Amino acid sequence: MPRPRGTPVALHELAAGEPGVVFALLTQKTSHATRDGKRFLTCHFQDAKRRVTSPIWSDSPLFAECESEWVAGGSYKIQGTYSEHEKYGPQLDILKIRPTRPEDAADGFREADLIERSRFDSAAMFDDLRQLATDAIADAPLRRLTLDLLDAHRETLLLLPATTQKFYPYPGGWLEHVLNVARVCLDLATRFAANFPDLKPPLNVDVVIAGAVLHDLGRAAELTPGPLGTPPEPTVAGRLFGHILLGRDLVREAARAIPDLHPDRLTLLEHLITSHLTLPEWGSPRLPAVPEVLILHHADDLDAKFEMYARCLARDTAAGAFTDRDPQLGKPLWKGREV
Amino acid sequence: MPRPRGTPVALHELAAGEPGVVFALLTQKTSHATRDGKRFLTCHFQDAKRRVTSPIWSDSPLFAECESEWVAGGSYKIQGTYSEHEKYGPQLDILKIRPTRPEDAADGFREADLIERSRFDSAAMFDDLRQLATDAIADAPLRRLTLDLLDAHRETLLLLPATTQKFYPYPGGWLEHVLNVARVCLDLATRFAANFPDLKPPLNVDVVIAGAVLHDLGRAAELTPGPLGTPPEPTVAGRLFGHILLGRDLVREAARAIPDLHPDRLTLLEHLITSHLTLPEWGSPRLPAVPEVLILHHADDLDAKFEMYARCLARDTAAGAFTDRDPQLGKPLWKGREV
Amino acid sequence: MPRPRGTPVALHELAAGEPGVVFALLTQKTSHATRDGKRFLTCHFQDAKRRVTSPIWSDSPLFAECESEWVAGGSYKIQGTYSEHEKYGPQLDILKIRPTRPEDAADGFREADLIERSRFDSAAMFDDLRQLATDAIADAPLRRLTLDLLDAHRETLLLLPATTQKFYPYPGGWLEHVLNVARVCLDLATRFAANFPDLKPPLNVDVVIAGAVLHDLGRAAELTPGPLGTPPEPTVAGRLFGHILLGRDLVREAARAIPDLHPDRLTLLEHLITSHLTLPEWGSPRLPAVPEVLILHHADDLDAKFEMYARCLARDTAAGAFTDRDPQLGKPLWKGREV
Amino acid sequence: MPRPRGTPVALHELAAGEPGVVFALLTQKTSHATRDGKRFLTCHFQDAKRRVTSPIWSDSPLFAECESEWVAGGSYKIQGTYSEHEKYGPQLDILKIRPTRPEDAADGFREADLIERSRFDSAAMFDDLRQLATDAIADAPLRRLTLDLLDAHRETLLLLPATTQKFYPYPGGWLEHVLNVARVCLDLATRFAANFPDLKPPLNVDVVIAGAVLHDLGRAAELTPGPLGTPPEPTVAGRLFGHILLGRDLVREAARAIPDLHPDRLTLLEHLITSHLTLPEWGSPRLPAVPEVLILHHADDLDAKFEMYARCLARDTAAGAFTDRDPQLGKPLWKGREV
Amino acid sequence: MPRPRGTPVALHELAAGEPGVVFALLTQKTSHATRDGKRFLTCHFQDAKRRVTSPIWSDSPLFAECESEWVAGGSYKIQGTYSEHEKYGPQLDILKIRPTRPEDAADGFREADLIERSRFDSAAMFDDLRQLATDAIADAPLRRLTLDLLDAHRETLLLLPATTQKFYPYPGGWLEHVLNVARVCLDLATRFAANFPDLKPPLNVDVVIAGAVLHDLGRAAELTPGPLGTPPEPTVAGRLFGHILLGRDLVREAARAIPDLHPDRLTLLEHLITSHLTLPEWGSPRLPAVPEVLILHHADDLDAKFEMYARCLARDTAAGAFTDRDPQLGKPLWKGREV
Amino acid sequence: MPRPRGTPVALHELAAGEPGVVFALLTQKTSHATRDGKRFLTCHFQDAKRRVTSPIWSDSPLFAECESEWVAGGSYKIQGTYSEHEKYGPQLDILKIRPTRPEDAADGFREADLIERSRFDSAAMFDDLRQLATDAIADAPLRRLTLDLLDAHRETLLLLPATTQKFYPYPGGWLEHVLNVARVCLDLATRFAANFPDLKPPLNVDVVIAGAVLHDLGRAAELTPGPLGTPPEPTVAGRLFGHILLGRDLVREAARAIPDLHPDRLTLLEHLITSHLTLPEWGSPRLPAVPEVLILHHADDLDAKFEMYARCLARDTAAGAFTDRDPQLGKPLWKGREV
Repeated sequence: MPRPRGTPVALHELAAGEPGVVFALLTQKTSHATRDGKRFLTCHFQDAKRRVTSPIWSDSPLFAECESEWVAGGSYKIQGTYSEHEKYGPQLDILKIRPTRPEDAADGFREADLIERSRFDSAAMFDDLRQLATDAIADAPLRRLTLDLLDAHRETLLLLPATTQKFYPYPGGWLEHVLNVARVCLDLATRFAANFPDLKPPLNVDVVIAGAVLHDLGRAAELTPGPLGTPPEPTVAGRLFGHILLGRDLVREAARAIPDLHPDRLTLLEHLITSHLTLPEWGSPRLPAVPEVLILHHADDLDAKFEMYARCLARDTAAGAFTDRDPQLGKPLWKGREV
Repeated sequence: MPRPRGTPVALHELAAGEPGVVFALLTQKTSHATRDGKRFLTCHFQDAKRRVTSPIWSDSPLFAECESEWVAGGSYKIQGTYSEHEKYGPQLDILKIRPTRPEDAADGFREADLIERSRFDSAAMFDDLRQLATDAIADAPLRRLTLDLLDAHRETLLLLPATTQKFYPYPGGWLEHVLNVARVCLDLATRFAANFPDLKPPLNVDVVIAGAVLHDLGRAAELTPGPLGTPPEPTVAGRLFGHILLGRDLVREAARAIPDLHPDRLTLLEHLITSHLTLPEWGSPRLPAVPEVLILHHADDLDAKFEMYARCLARDTAAGAFTDRDPQLGKPLWKGREV
Repeated sequence: MPRPRGTPVALHELAAGEPGVVFALLTQKTSHATRDGKRFLTCHFQDAKRRVTSPIWSDSPLFAECESEWVAGGSYKIQGTYSEHEKYGPQLDILKIRPTRPEDAADGFREADLIERSRFDSAAMFDDLRQLATDAIADAPLRRLTLDLLDAHRETLLLLPATTQKFYPYPGGWLEHVLNVARVCLDLATRFAANFPDLKPPLNVDVVIAGAVLHDLGRAAELTPGPLGTPPEPTVAGRLFGHILLGRDLVREAARAIPDLHPDRLTLLEHLITSHLTLPEWGSPRLPAVPEVLILHHADDLDAKFEMYARCLARDTAAGAFTDRDPQLGKPLWKGREV
Repeated sequence: MPRPRGTPVALHELAAGEPGVVFALLTQKTSHATRDGKRFLTCHFQDAKRRVTSPIWSDSPLFAECESEWVAGGSYKIQGTYSEHEKYGPQLDILKIRPTRPEDAADGFREADLIERSRFDSAAMFDDLRQLATDAIADAPLRRLTLDLLDAHRETLLLLPATTQKFYPYPGGWLEHVLNVARVCLDLATRFAANFPDLKPPLNVDVVIAGAVLHDLGRAAELTPGPLGTPPEPTVAGRLFGHILLGRDLVREAARAIPDLHPDRLTLLEHLITSHLTLPEWGSPRLPAVPEVLILHHADDLDAKFEMYARCLARDTAAGAFTDRDPQLGKPLWKGREV
Repeated sequence: MPRPRGTPVALHELAAGEPGVVFALLTQKTSHATRDGKRFLTCHFQDAKRRVTSPIWSDSPLFAECESEWVAGGSYKIQGTYSEHEKYGPQLDILKIRPTRPEDAADGFREADLIERSRFDSAAMFDDLRQLATDAIADAPLRRLTLDLLDAHRETLLLLPATTQKFYPYPGGWLEHVLNVARVCLDLATRFAANFPDLKPPLNVDVVIAGAVLHDLGRAAELTPGPLGTPPEPTVAGRLFGHILLGRDLVREAARAIPDLHPDRLTLLEHLITSHLTLPEWGSPRLPAVPEVLILHHADDLDAKFEMYARCLARDTAAGAFTDRDPQLGKPLWKGREV
Repeated sequence: MPRPRGTPVALHELAAGEPGVVFALLTQKTSHATRDGKRFLTCHFQDAKRRVTSPIWSDSPLFAECESEWVAGGSYKIQGTYSEHEKYGPQLDILKIRPTRPEDAADGFREADLIERSRFDSAAMFDDLRQLATDAIADAPLRRLTLDLLDAHRETLLLLPATTQKFYPYPGGWLEHVLNVARVCLDLATRFAANFPDLKPPLNVDVVIAGAVLHDLGRAAELTPGPLGTPPEPTVAGRLFGHILLGRDLVREAARAIPDLHPDRLTLLEHLITSHLTLPEWGSPRLPAVPEVLILHHADDLDAKFEMYARCLARDTAAGAFTDRDPQLGKPLWKGREV
């Protein structure tokens, strides 16, 4: 069924060869020249699920405006034709273009639709995480510390990815990862407390949950969220000290305001943050010395790896039973099974 | 309150310096001589929770009988005095001794009480594991394969440790470990299937559970359970090929009898067994290529490590806030915390 | 001496700038466009000793036919001129082209001449290998097992390379490598049996030879030979389990049909296949436990490395006393010596 | 020349076989029994340069007093004979013994003489270090921070070794190491500032010196100095976080009181402390990112290794041109050279 | 202030867009073609501080002369315009060009100005190094050996870089590095001789200095200095044996002429050369066995790393507080600090 | 059949409990005391195939003579009784003892029979090795170099082990290893020259053989053969430079006397010696750059490992199908197979 002409559609819904009107985010604009000197600009546009390039040649009527006015981070209403070039990939041939305006909302324009992000709403995930901490941490001062830290960094956490490239690398990714890890930790802590009833000292479920919620809090000090569609930039402290040390700093700082927090609880929490990567070669400054770390470590590593596998399988378009070699995983995955 | 004289008590309940009548298992008998040539025999006796040594000097009236008749693996009724020697550790000074007789059952003698073993009854764990597989594996041929293999090796599995030295190193340990891993896998598979609803191909929970139940089945071919109180002996095939390859062999063999098992299901199951240790340096011949392996790997590794931590904490008697350096873990653990 | 005009010559015999008529295999055809949009197709042609590319521009009279009809894997009779481009390497400028026909045989066309392959005839090498096994394996059941397995996989083994990229990476390479290894193993086993006459148990030469012949048999299950001129594709089982495990599977399967094979002989053979790479970091799931593995390991590794050195030296065209850094060996070799 | 009878001499000055009156520190007392049950106590006595053992047999008149009254950490006046036993090493055969009394000072008793310690007076080294920081750190707030921290931890630093076992493992060792490192850093910073005049940003000599003075400050939080003659005990925080993180904590804490300290200076100082071990496998949580770290790293590592070489050479008594294999260095050193 | 027209200026002083007359060294000339077959030559010109490229198209009047006459290694007088292309980097658009002539010296032409080289004059550094050895090596035969070797290789050492790519990779770099190392060694040897007055055998400062001067002498046999502006070529012996072994060979050879050199001094010197990289994984064939090696090792490694840091900081033009990831260092450095 | 009384027999032929007269070498004499102070001397006697200990108590009539006169390295005629103690192993209870005398030769005493040594006569092996070099090295100057070096070090080579502990660790072991390696190299070089007829440059068999003969020549400079029955001592140069560098030195030195030796032949030979261990972590200062090294490396490594396996199997007395874990190999071997 042909679409009504002129009505905006989602960029990622255009078929190859199909013309249409779309809203798109300009994420990058770079200048080039061919070997024999002809100049052109390459513009990268995207919505949440597709990225396209548009070359603007120096003899195009759009060239001057593109060169002087279009800005990375800006969103545009574009009339053009989508194509898939064998060598240069997805292309958008632009006929007309202008910056979006407030009234475009009436046509369904929402800037958020142009950005790859978590399947879930960040604010809702934040609330879920907060609720989980509220419900699952019995010790009042520890619960207070955990909630205080979440609240203090809420604005940043809503925007952060879990990592810039490896897993959940999109806005909201931090919350999606941490919420999953916290839920898995709750499952595991419950199970292991039951399996090992004689453990001395007994498993401190409170600390496992607080550790899960806060284990990557240091990302809020390590990274500065960038403009829409661009990865966050590391801070100076982020590069020099890393999120493990910075996260422990944030916890120690906040704990000053909670004098009734038992010092051993604070020490345990700091130890979970410091050693949850377990080995020096994996980035851990110290080895784990309590069983609570094991639960956090495995929940964290499993969730990170699982997401990387899932992304590799979702993204892949290779022929045959296996994906292409995934650059993050360093190997191909088996996708062509029947069960 | 003093115990009634002559009534047998458990060896591990005697206080230092206390005399008593006990039942004990002789696990080792070795011959020695002092520097100046005086001969003596060292006997190791144990019940499930204590190990003692008894030197029998060549001028003791028990020496001849000890040398010619006492047998490792035999159980004895002993009248003696328990002591804790500063250098040689727990000792039992023997006054009288004879092999146990059937009528000792009336005094509470049960050979099983003399062996360190799982907190749980092996037969009951086996039934629980069988039930879990029955309930959680939806595909009938895969379920059949799993149950057939459990049933075929039941007698051996009831007796096996999980490993000879590292974790759950006692009879019933295989079942305790595998049952925990299977339960954790069920938790995790449920959670990750919910967290990643778009995964393609979707998470195969059946295979995760079958993999959990069978991942260490190769131990049944790698090890031969020994006499009471002694660790199992590796078989020739066990030493040459290891439990990973032997476990896959058992699965392939049994699958011949189930022609309606989907070949991809069998391949997945073999792959989980082969690669659940994930890295060559951890003993895995191949790298994981499906996300199901991740769940099994983390459940397995977490349960193994957790048990090692728990054993270290339970066993330790060091002064101070930390245990001694645990020989398996290669580090001390923090035990002296208040929360 | 000028060649008679119109008589086909071998592609690899044309000098730079020389026109001629050649037969060539089309191994790849891909579509491109220049920065400013001009389309062209790049065709890769080869004979056994030279690879050339032919760009076909969209304004060439050959373009339409090239785009719609030429097929990778097809062989063609081509009139053209050979040149060596400073940047794009060996080129063939095509004047006329048509698919080969049966009557081209009269002009000397043989499809086999277009493929890089072993210096030796695969069928003859297969026969030599079969004969070596027949002569050198004294134990009848083991000899039967070895010959049965060779015969069962003959068709595949004739086509396989030893590896897809590292050594003997061409059709017939499997046979050339295995035949060399078997011969070297026979030399070495004879020598070491003489050098170590007191070895207990004595060196089992039979098993060394059977191990040499079968050590890479798993390649037949790991790889599927592809169309002419293309490397073989890994199978699903090949990727998931690798040729070591698959080779042992094939041996175990075939051994079912030979009930009089001594079980220790079978175990030794499986052990040689499983551990001939000796170390986990080299791909061996288990460590060697008998001296026979040492002979197989060194014969295999020496032959593989020697072929890589020989290929590097044969292929290299760098100026100076050393080859370029070889990508497989990770270093340059010394070629410019006088002795 | 024979010594006047009854006048105390230093334990380490007694020749083998020589009787004498000495002052000595009891560092350890343990209870043993021979194979046939005869009890004895082993006492370890020392002065700063010699360690001896004295077995006290159960039939000795000293046994009861030794068992009930002698205390590790106590100092004693002893009349006895020194000998060097082929198997048990240096021995002191005790004739008479009593705890030291205040009036022994008149005979030259100083408890400090009984402990292996730095060649230098701790208080003097502390003053030297303080002076070096005062002179060499030009920036007033950074100098203040450095001096504040030294002063705050003075009492502990006077007593600490540099490490418990590896280098400078005796009271005062921390100061000796840190003072050497600071002096070498001053030499090197001066030299490299001259060699690289164009470095941008220019070498911050202040920060190099502050980093040298404070790089191991975390030892004050990691270790608790023990009784005389015993190594310090790690604290809970010391084991869980290590001296690198704890040292940075101390610096950050103290910097709160110095608001005019330039934040980049503080960041640089924290970075030197955090990364001066340079590589994760050497204990560094982060890699160096400024050239100042290089100077501190090399000064620190050179001084540590040099002291280990010097101790190995000083301690060794092996025959031949090489020392015995040093347990810390893992190799023997060449000592028997003529130049 | 505009420059007088026609007066030559330094290439690296031209602003973007500025025309001018310059002297430049041609370091490389390569032939290319565009996708559609248009030929062009790419010429690389440089002076000591800037490298530019000049494409010469086949339709340029300069093409024929460029192709047939211009020679890498030649220096040219060029009239042209400098520009900075966004994609192809610094460019020089050539209007007129001719080889330099003797009379160009009057206009300030000096070939040496066209080569990146040490800030210092090679001959002066050589003299400084010779003087340092003369002053600091007290033992006459050892001093003679050191000076003889310097003098014998003077011509080569004046031209060599320290390494071809890693540190001080320009003519004179060998001398700059070795002179710095020798000076630092003198500082350190003086300091450590004072810090460890009891060292037995005492620190041999002579040998430290001779080792510093000669530690990389093997470069003179490993590398052959190339034409102006090109890196030196490794010799056959250089590739097969490396500069460590070759340097020791040179020392042993020269020592034959100095019979009064104490053999232990020679052995020490050889040992410093052989083991100054300390670990096999860093290229050292043997481990250090004397403390003198420690001083040389740390002085050498510190100077090498420091230069790499300094070059990275000097070269970098990245936006932000950190440099780009340096390919030699494998990480970015912090440059944007205020102190 | 009982032995004639008083006629000497070989020590290793005495059954447990059997008295006899033997010749034996005293290899070690050490002084001890029991816990309660009773002194005794422990003497180690041996013949080539058995080692025994004889405790001499302070109340024995032999004690004074043993203490003052018996010397390690001396050979003795002993009348005594052999026994096998459960804890202290093989014992010889001495009744009478005196040093051997020249006339004992009449009773069959030969000192050489008391030392573990090669199965082969050293002089004969030396001749065989010399003959092999003479026959197999076609190039006269290279042959001369090889023979000159063998002849120059003949006396030492006759006595040396291949290594002090790892393989062929007994007098004559150097020759046994090198002769085997040379023979295997001849086999392999012949085989590979035939398998790779197109190799360019062609395989230099001469150099392979010379390399095989001389690859461990450096042992002659690294080790000084000790008194009978004791391992050789490393020299100072041996410890500081190792046998690889010292062996190359010897070759270079000897080559000065052979001016017609082609320099590339010498370089190849030096390269084979330098790189035959192939990897830095295996002790090789440089990587191989010619295929000749591969043959030498594999022949050397195979012969060394094979001997270690053979020794492990010959020595082992463990119960069960596997040997004990071999300390050199780090694993047990399978010995209990039937084929």
